[in-house]
Amino acid sequence: MKKFVLAPDSFKESLTAKEVCQAMENGLRHAFPDSEYVHMPMADGGEGTVQSLVDATEGIIKELEVVGPLGNPVIAHYGILGDGVTGVVEMASASGIHLVSKEERNPLVTTTYGTGQLIKACLDEGVTQIIIGIGGSATNDGGAGMASALGASLLDEKGETIGLGGGELGKLAQIKVDQLDVRLSKVELLVACDVTNPLCGATGASYVFGPQKGANKEMTALLDTNLEHFAKLIEQQLAVNVLDIAGAGAAGGLGAGLLAFTKAKLEKGIDIVTNYTDLEKYVKEADYVFTGEGGMDNQTKYGKTPYGVAKIAQRHQKPVIGIAGHVGDGVEELYAEGFTAILGIVPSAITLEDALENGFKNVERTCENIGRLLVK
Amino acid sequence: MKKFVLAPDSFKESLTAKEVCQAMENGLRHAFPDSEYVHMPMADGGEGTVQSLVDATEGIIKELEVVGPLGNPVIAHYGILGDGVTGVVEMASASGIHLVSKEERNPLVTTTYGTGQLIKACLDEGVTQIIIGIGGSATNDGGAGMASALGASLLDEKGETIGLGGGELGKLAQIKVDQLDVRLSKVELLVACDVTNPLCGATGASYVFGPQKGANKEMTALLDTNLEHFAKLIEQQLAVNVLDIAGAGAAGGLGAGLLAFTKAKLEKGIDIVTNYTDLEKYVKEADYVFTGEGGMDNQTKYGKTPYGVAKIAQRHQKPVIGIAGHVGDGVEELYAEGFTAILGIVPSAITLEDALENGFKNVERTCENIGRLLVK
Repeated sequence: MKKFVLAPDSFKESLTAKEVCQAMENGLRHAFPDSEYVHMPMADGGEGTVQSLVDATEGIIKELEVVGPLGNPVIAHYGILGDGVTGVVEMASASGIHLVSKEERNPLVTTTYGTGQLIKACLDEGVTQIIIGIGGSATNDGGAGMASALGASLLDEKGETIGLGGGELGKLAQIKVDQLDVRLSKVELLVACDVTNPLCGATGASYVFGPQKGANKEMTALLDTNLEHFAKLIEQQLAVNVLDIAGAGAAGGLGAGLLAFTKAKLEKGIDIVTNYTDLEKYVKEADYVFTGEGGMDNQTKYGKTPYGVAKIAQRHQKPVIGIAGHVGDGVEELYAEGFTAILGIVPSAITLEDALENGFKNVERTCENIGRLLVK
Repeated sequence: MKKFVLAPDSFKESLTAKEVCQAMENGLRHAFPDSEYVHMPMADGGEGTVQSLVDATEGIIKELEVVGPLGNPVIAHYGILGDGVTGVVEMASASGIHLVSKEERNPLVTTTYGTGQLIKACLDEGVTQIIIGIGGSATNDGGAGMASALGASLLDEKGETIGLGGGELGKLAQIKVDQLDVRLSKVELLVACDVTNPLCGATGASYVFGPQKGANKEMTALLDTNLEHFAKLIEQQLAVNVLDIAGAGAAGGLGAGLLAFTKAKLEKGIDIVTNYTDLEKYVKEADYVFTGEGGMDNQTKYGKTPYGVAKIAQRHQKPVIGIAGHVGDGVEELYAEGFTAILGIVPSAITLEDALENGFKNVERTCENIGRLLVK
């Protein structure tokens, strides 16, 4: 009896990771009817991480109205995992770029305040650990909004609270943490961070990511200056160095803010997820490992889910098979990273809409045929 | 050392069968570098049959100006296979529906005369056998034009030659074959015929295929009456029964004409091709058989190339793997026909134009990954 570990990411806009697992099993069962199938819905800290981890652990998803990136209310969500003591948050749910129309994008004013509220909600649930995915931000505030939501006071020279957004940080004179949520001192934040950008400078948050959030040249320069000012005050007043830390520039400097105000550890998203779900234990016992994602190409090796899964499989010399709705350029570079094979699931020249709509059927059919080849 | 037999049809509008073979080998060689690859470009009597058989046997293709379906000159082609004594003709090359614009379609006047000229050209090359694919016709003349081109005289009551096209056959009173090309008595015509329609009646050439060639209701009835008249004269004057023969209604009754005027044998196209190329001999010695076609679906089992190849592989219990640019509805019905697996080659949701343009690369990548699964 063969044992299959099914560890895909979601197929964005088509299937959750859990649904991909089910479609994989349905297909493979035609070829291996009596085998064991372990469903391990995966994520890499990006969109779908809450859903995948909740599905993997039989946890729950909760909704909460928070302050959106532009100060308007938005309905965001967070998860409490099956162990009951781990929260999981995607910053994009509260402070994401998808919540801001192209015309409204302005990183001088966008705030991570809502992300802080999601963290607070997890604390209210009594968690001892929070996994936080920080991709897709609309913000460039160094996590200042997040800190404020958790009780930090950011004051100007007159002792008055500064406004929200990265544009306000230039006025900052004093950071008070006496009202900071005390529970933060006991809760570990695992920050899924796949970039190594520092907070400031040419490779920092503002210069690299500011423009895609709506910053023009002058705004970018101002935001960079402001983040540097913020970092210096953090060092002076909180005795935390965030200026030279790789990854502190992630999510408009939210990385830095999390390091300054919480017990944060920046790790690769896929490593956080595979560690948390004990993927390696299951892979060790598997005959075949299946993974996949909506798209796979030569970028997959920069920390995407299928890459992380393949690395674990490779360590234990297990065949690992990837499937994807979009098999992109340079996918052959992944063979050296441990992939046995990578197959597309799209049956013919069809529209994206058709592909997204028929994802389940296409995963099923492709996995059936892979199974039929493996049986031979 | 593994042995692969690569026996695909062409991928219409994208790759010849020979090119598919090469792309398959290129891909598989990544996984099986030292294996033996036997290229067997296949066809089923449809479009691409001349090209595939010429490629398979290192024969040559020749061009010839002939009388087109509407009487206008067209450049058609035929092949002389590597043995030097077998000709191969596609009727569509001289008398095909693609040569007639939608506005001009009129099966009362379209003629198979050019197809007869191609047969004559093969005779002039000294062949002893002609393979003829009869799909895609624009005609409904019962092969009368073909017979005329080869020397038969079709005369009205006054002894004058009738005009071309199925609409003229009602005037036919006498068929004279004293001037018929004498070489036809010594040359076998293998007619690739995948339909079983009789010449006349509700399931006959005119009623089933006439409308798609431009016949309205009245024309259809007239054409059917004329073909029946033609058949009766053939029986009376040539002592050949074509009225009750399955397949005589193929290609607007060209099947009947070939039976009446030549030493024709109607066979399934794929059987003619696999027999001629000795495919079975190679399959017997193979470890894996690969086939494929531009599109594969539940229609594939009605005599398409991949089906014929799979049946031979199944007979010898060899794994047979199909690939296709378009994997269509009901493809899973093919597993019971001997297919080990069937994979699509399209990498993502792309346009048909993109798919056709990148066929070689997509076949290559897919076969590399299939090879990587088979090696495991």
